[in-house]
Amino acid sequence: MKFFEDIQVGDVFEYGRYTFTAANIKAFATRFDPQLFHVDEAAAARSHFGALCAPGWHTAAAWMRLMIDYRRRMDEAMRARGEPVAGIGPALGFRDLKWPKPVYVGDTIAYQSEVIELRLSGSRPQAGLMTFSSTGVNQNGEPVLSLVSTTFVELRGAAP
Amino acid sequence: MKFFEDIQVGDVFEYGRYTFTAANIKAFATRFDPQLFHVDEAAAARSHFGALCAPGWHTAAAWMRLMIDYRRRMDEAMRARGEPVAGIGPALGFRDLKWPKPVYVGDTIAYQSEVIELRLSGSRPQAGLMTFSSTGVNQNGEPVLSLVSTTFVELRGAAP
Repeated sequence: MKFFEDIQVGDVFEYGRYTFTAANIKAFATRFDPQLFHVDEAAAARSHFGALCAPGWHTAAAWMRLMIDYRRRMDEAMRARGEPVAGIGPALGFRDLKWPKPVYVGDTIAYQSEVIELRLSGSRPQAGLMTFSSTGVNQNGEPVLSLVSTTFVELRGAAP
Repeated sequence: MKFFEDIQVGDVFEYGRYTFTAANIKAFATRFDPQLFHVDEAAAARSHFGALCAPGWHTAAAWMRLMIDYRRRMDEAMRARGEPVAGIGPALGFRDLKWPKPVYVGDTIAYQSEVIELRLSGSRPQAGLMTFSSTGVNQNGEPVLSLVSTTFVELRGAAP
C-alpha cells in the first residue's frame, strides 16, 4: 500500500472483474447461505429473483478477494521499484452496505474503490484512517454492491 | 418465518454457536481474504493480531449461515404444527457492520439478533420491513461482530 501521506481523497483503485458461475455461486451458498434461490435453479426460477443468483455475501467476498490481490500487486510493484511499502489494516468495519440488484449466473462484476475521507487516528499515532467507498458494477453498468469501509494505513513518518 | 404482524420490536432470535478452527479459517481466507495473518500461523504471530485470526467476512458469513439454519428450523416447526409460514427476503443490505475484536482459533461465537424496527413498505404492499441488530459474542462475553440489517417479511394479510 502507499503510505497515508501519499493517498488523496478522490484516488480510485480499480480491482478488476469477477464472473459469477452456477458452480461458484453454489459452492459459496452451500457453505454460507443455502437459501434455495442460491443453490437450486428450479427453485430460483420460482422465487422473486427468477433465476439462480449469488448470495450478497458472495458478491462482497469477491470484492474483498480482488481488493487483497490488487494490494499485493501494488506492493510487489512498489518493492520492484525499490520503494518502501506501507502497512494497511486492521479494518474497523464498514457502513451502508447495499445490494441494489441481484447478481445472476454469467454476470461479470467490476469492482473499484474511491477514497472519500482521510484523517489522523487518535488511538494509533503511527497510522491514519482511510475511508473509501467501494462499488461492484455489472456488465450492463448497473451497481450490484456498494459499501463504505474504514481502515488504518501506516504513516510514512512512522516507518522504521 | 413468522408473519410480519406476529413479530414485535424486542423479539430476539438465538441462532446458536460457531467454532472457528485453523482449518475453517484458512479454508475461507484462502478463497476470499488471503492476508497472511489469516492463512499462516507464523506470519500471524508477527502481525498486529499476534495469532491466526478469522477474516471479518468469515465471522459475518458464519452468522448468515446460522441465521438461515435457524429460520429453516423455525419454519419446519411451524409446518409441523400446521401453521402457515411467512416468506422472508430479499434483504436490502445492512449498516454499521463492526468487528470490535479479532476472532482467534478456538473461539466459539454465539450469534443472535434483536428486532429494532418494524414498518410497512411503500414499494411492496404484501410485505413489511423488519430491521434487526445482530451480534456475535465470544466465549469471554466480548462482542466480535455487530451489524444492522433490513429485510422484507411477508404480511399475514397477503398470504394466498
